[in-house]
Amino acid sequence: MHLLAIGGSDAGIAAALRARELDDTVEVTVMLADEFPNFSVCGIPYLVSGEVADWRDLAHRRREEIEALGIDVATATTALAIDVAAHRVRSTGPDGAERSTPYDRLVVATGATPVLPPIIGLDRLGAADGVHALHTMGDTFEVLATLSERRPERVVVVGAGYVGLEMAEALTRRGLAVCLVEAQPQVLSTLDPEIAEVVAATLVEHGVEVRTATTVREIERDGDELVVRARDHGARTPTDVEMRAGLVLVVTGVAPDTALARAAGAAVGARGAIRVDRRMATGLPDVYAAGDCVVTHHALLGEGYLPLGTTAHKQGRVAGENALGGDRRFAGSLGTQVVRVFESVAARTGIRDHEARDAGLDPRTIGVSADDHKAYYPGATRVEVRLTGDDATGRLLGAQLVGTVASAVHKRVDTAAAALFSGLAVDELSDLDLAYTPPLGSPWDVLQVAAQRWRAEASAPPVAR
Amino acid sequence: MHLLAIGGSDAGIAAALRARELDDTVEVTVMLADEFPNFSVCGIPYLVSGEVADWRDLAHRRREEIEALGIDVATATTALAIDVAAHRVRSTGPDGAERSTPYDRLVVATGATPVLPPIIGLDRLGAADGVHALHTMGDTFEVLATLSERRPERVVVVGAGYVGLEMAEALTRRGLAVCLVEAQPQVLSTLDPEIAEVVAATLVEHGVEVRTATTVREIERDGDELVVRARDHGARTPTDVEMRAGLVLVVTGVAPDTALARAAGAAVGARGAIRVDRRMATGLPDVYAAGDCVVTHHALLGEGYLPLGTTAHKQGRVAGENALGGDRRFAGSLGTQVVRVFESVAARTGIRDHEARDAGLDPRTIGVSADDHKAYYPGATRVEVRLTGDDATGRLLGAQLVGTVASAVHKRVDTAAAALFSGLAVDELSDLDLAYTPPLGSPWDVLQVAAQRWRAEASAPPVAR
Repeated sequence: MHLLAIGGSDAGIAAALRARELDDTVEVTVMLADEFPNFSVCGIPYLVSGEVADWRDLAHRRREEIEALGIDVATATTALAIDVAAHRVRSTGPDGAERSTPYDRLVVATGATPVLPPIIGLDRLGAADGVHALHTMGDTFEVLATLSERRPERVVVVGAGYVGLEMAEALTRRGLAVCLVEAQPQVLSTLDPEIAEVVAATLVEHGVEVRTATTVREIERDGDELVVRARDHGARTPTDVEMRAGLVLVVTGVAPDTALARAAGAAVGARGAIRVDRRMATGLPDVYAAGDCVVTHHALLGEGYLPLGTTAHKQGRVAGENALGGDRRFAGSLGTQVVRVFESVAARTGIRDHEARDAGLDPRTIGVSADDHKAYYPGATRVEVRLTGDDATGRLLGAQLVGTVASAVHKRVDTAAAALFSGLAVDELSDLDLAYTPPLGSPWDVLQVAAQRWRAEASAPPVAR
Repeated sequence: MHLLAIGGSDAGIAAALRARELDDTVEVTVMLADEFPNFSVCGIPYLVSGEVADWRDLAHRRREEIEALGIDVATATTALAIDVAAHRVRSTGPDGAERSTPYDRLVVATGATPVLPPIIGLDRLGAADGVHALHTMGDTFEVLATLSERRPERVVVVGAGYVGLEMAEALTRRGLAVCLVEAQPQVLSTLDPEIAEVVAATLVEHGVEVRTATTVREIERDGDELVVRARDHGARTPTDVEMRAGLVLVVTGVAPDTALARAAGAAVGARGAIRVDRRMATGLPDVYAAGDCVVTHHALLGEGYLPLGTTAHKQGRVAGENALGGDRRFAGSLGTQVVRVFESVAARTGIRDHEARDAGLDPRTIGVSADDHKAYYPGATRVEVRLTGDDATGRLLGAQLVGTVASAVHKRVDTAAAALFSGLAVDELSDLDLAYTPPLGSPWDVLQVAAQRWRAEASAPPVAR
């Protein structure tokens, strides 16, 4: 039995590790196009900031550790085609030669690639000009090379999603002047404006120039500088703005990398991602897929595209188990996400008001603000919570939080995620027996304060067990 | 309609507030023996330490705030007897005169009183000698008076439960030499030794002398000093030890204060606490009870005695609602607790291995240690987790954690509490969509690492949804 995983990031490695864990006789190979198996790409901002000194530390496991488990790691090997009938994958290896690798079970974990917005000049400019995408370790080394060789003083970051904000922080920490440009009217458009604006304020406090409602239209090279031309459509009368920078970083999201699977006949779904069932099977015989290249089962919404490392780990693990004859099901994503930006932390789980409405539900969303711990104990900070519940059934639908690192927002959201996973009602949040000590909490946790506020406003009948 | 609550701490105030919230026409009175309604007694250690400068800040709400809601607050009023048939409470007020107060609904929230161990001399010694219990604001003022007037250099704290440890820290912070004496072989005997020993090590690092397996037998006054004689039974051959201190604090737990309710005919249960149903009704007509004086419904174990502030708030809220004709049920306690001792935090929820075994279950408990966040990002610290699951059914039974304040153990335990509330299987912890960003977490949260370890060792069939 030979399990082959195409892709050396979270999903591919998770599949390989799970297979090895379950059966030490199975042959396991991970094939990847670059030289960086099992790297934590979520850690790239902290390498760029200098908080992580050595890029090798970004590996979840070193190559030797993976190989010591008896997993074959084929780096610099690009998969070209899957022959489903013959159970073979054609690839080019480090020597440039083509080869054909047989498999019994295949896990496609080809991940995602950056989506570049329609900016004039972007097709002509690249790393050599100081214009960068940021998705792989290779991209990272190019950014680091630009930073050390061209020594830019100003950076324009295009895109104020999670990565854009983390990179704005990272480059500020390195001493650069950062302008963060976002076409949407707010940063972090996956969060409600009330939550996102707290993070935006933190960016501004740390000297980041935040330009929302501003669409970049053109990037041009002018000697050693880059000229970024954009349209600010935030005011009633749009205006044209021009920014100059030594480095432009374009981080405006990703799309699933599915060419290989589609060519082999795999069906695709949301956002063009590979369609899989909850066993992570593609429908092609003996071919599983997992991670950023697949459609993800969302516990509340059904099929969607949610490229996240945590999900990739879980799906890879399921794929690896099922490839060996197991019968695990991916339990479903809740889109749980957290971002730390300087001392601020924002997080969400579940769905927001408009997402629930789009899904035909009858949501009600409330916002509260409460201290992370008893105000009499020094150091209390405010946590803002927005809670969404189904006003027909009382079921909890989602939670968004923002606060400081010290307020443990990043773990408070997990309580809501566990409640959502279990299908709890908003009222039941109030019934949870949560931990309390004055320096670290309150007798009613902020989620419970939010639940009580929701109940006071809701039409749904009370729910209790 | 007149709702009378006897007791001005968490349960009594919660009942009064809930009644007021639901119906602004009902007359609401809170009767309490001292002058400190709605005080956060959990905050007393931080007042003693000096971290909270003004004792008035320990009030959850000031008296005027409660009265502004239209709640009558009768302080310095000791309830003497409940006449259930006549619906009247006899009391003595601040002027010493007896009076009789009619009620339509009564909430008994008389709380608990300290249990003093059988130590020779304890009956003769008191605050004037520097020997203190610590339960009320009155006790607290006496301790503060001893500290400022006698200026002791050494303190013996008898009892290494939550309060004992918090007070050991508080008095150390004040610059006193603290000896913490505990009859059990470990501190925090409500936690597994593997968890408790991490906290004990923190105490020792901060200069606290920790004497476990040591039973205090006698306290004697010797001039301005107190001589504490104990037997150390930790070694094969027990030895007698003698300690000298200017202040002795005896904090060895509490028992329900039920004299009033029992005299009125209320039934009692575990530990002599007032028996209530899940509506917090005592069985006496129109008499409810809540908080540290009642038997608590434990979601996993049924009836027990679990005096905790969080529980008192919840039960008081239920009692207040039902007293007005509502039909809420107290959802049940999981015994969730957390304590911070210097930079260490230890927490538990649910039940431990031996508790499950005593309840006729077939538990399996495993321990793991993992970084609170990705090790490549600076500042990662270890979190120790002990997870207990039912090896017959796979159901999660309990979790214990210890780590640093920065590792957010106090909120990580809440994820387990939410899972327990929902009856999740250990396997399902692994399926939870929890938040991840490298500076604050790992793709698999430490609870999920623990769940996977449990699964690897368990006999229970895998559970998935």
